[in-house]
Amino acid sequence: MDFEKLVSDFKSGKPVIIFDDPKREGEADIVIHAKFATPEKIRLLRQDAGGLICLCTDKQTASKLGVGFYTDMVKNSNDEGVRKIAIEKTPYGDEPSFSVYINSRKVRTGITDEQRSLTVREFDEMLGAGAEREFASRFYAPGHVPLLISRGIENRHGHTEMSIELCKMAGMSPAVVICEMLADDSKALSWNGVLEYSKKKGFFAIMGAELLEGLKK
Amino acid sequence: MDFEKLVSDFKSGKPVIIFDDPKREGEADIVIHAKFATPEKIRLLRQDAGGLICLCTDKQTASKLGVGFYTDMVKNSNDEGVRKIAIEKTPYGDEPSFSVYINSRKVRTGITDEQRSLTVREFDEMLGAGAEREFASRFYAPGHVPLLISRGIENRHGHTEMSIELCKMAGMSPAVVICEMLADDSKALSWNGVLEYSKKKGFFAIMGAELLEGLKK
Repeated sequence: MDFEKLVSDFKSGKPVIIFDDPKREGEADIVIHAKFATPEKIRLLRQDAGGLICLCTDKQTASKLGVGFYTDMVKNSNDEGVRKIAIEKTPYGDEPSFSVYINSRKVRTGITDEQRSLTVREFDEMLGAGAEREFASRFYAPGHVPLLISRGIENRHGHTEMSIELCKMAGMSPAVVICEMLADDSKALSWNGVLEYSKKKGFFAIMGAELLEGLKK
Repeated sequence: MDFEKLVSDFKSGKPVIIFDDPKREGEADIVIHAKFATPEKIRLLRQDAGGLICLCTDKQTASKLGVGFYTDMVKNSNDEGVRKIAIEKTPYGDEPSFSVYINSRKVRTGITDEQRSLTVREFDEMLGAGAEREFASRFYAPGHVPLLISRGIENRHGHTEMSIELCKMAGMSPAVVICEMLADDSKALSWNGVLEYSKKKGFFAIMGAELLEGLKK
């Protein structure tokens, strides 16, 4: 496994693909650093992946921004019906990484490729400026881009955590856009489907187990 | 304008298209009653529309379920950063219709066409059984399908409200799946683009103003 190639592709803005584990979600996500999330890249996520277009960050950043997990918002909701459906863990055993759904204050509706791109890149720009205190002047909620918070690779082996590890390896800010790859058979794209797609597009694809193994080195 | 055709198409499970208003979002949504939201229909929304796949219901149902608006969850969050980014109104002037993000308890990850279809149809089945009290045994949050609550067509002219009016006209339960149509130019699909698509597919497309006019009759 050519770890250097994975990191250099990611660092250059090329989409990379991470398939978590057949025993976990059994899903592949296309992963792109937020800095490179142009409208064209958002379109690629929408058309070639098809799941939810999410923005991942790390615990330290979330803590600086003062945002927590969606799980807690649900659990502490004033609405009885919402509190009643709150879960702590997903059916595959992990705590969810969802936080709040945001839009950049520069957008109008928030959903077009141009506007989701703005939201995602604005987040990275904010971090780049070291200005987490500008969160409220740059973003609002409810928005159209779910923020996901890494629970730390030592606690959870999700796409969120693995993507944030990629940022660290590349020496980049903790801001990644990810999207689940869906297939025409109504299921998630299989590993074989991933290999076929990644070969066609020239994208690097990796299994979670292999990525985790590489991180130990 | 052939209102009867619009209602009978909707009633038979055919997708219909509503373009709100160039002065509002300026966006077209594909609209399908939840009952007919098969995995194939979810795929159509994902591939031909491309926005967020949302499930709309009405105020009465939301009240029976005990769920409110996401705006309030944000405003009342325990997290200071979340409270700080809370908005009351969208940039185009309306209060958002977002409520909580749900999954059916039958799903594993929640995002595939099969699983979003399950979530959406389960909601309609629950209403059909008159069993809103089964909400907590059938759904959980955080999930992958945003529930939207109509603020009433007298208060708001969004896709949510117009879709719920369609349900009433068709004598169907208040459960509709909708998705914004995006274009390859990184913007929302224009009305001309909608006409071209709807002609090709044989789907009924209508402007919000015309739909609102028709409702008065």
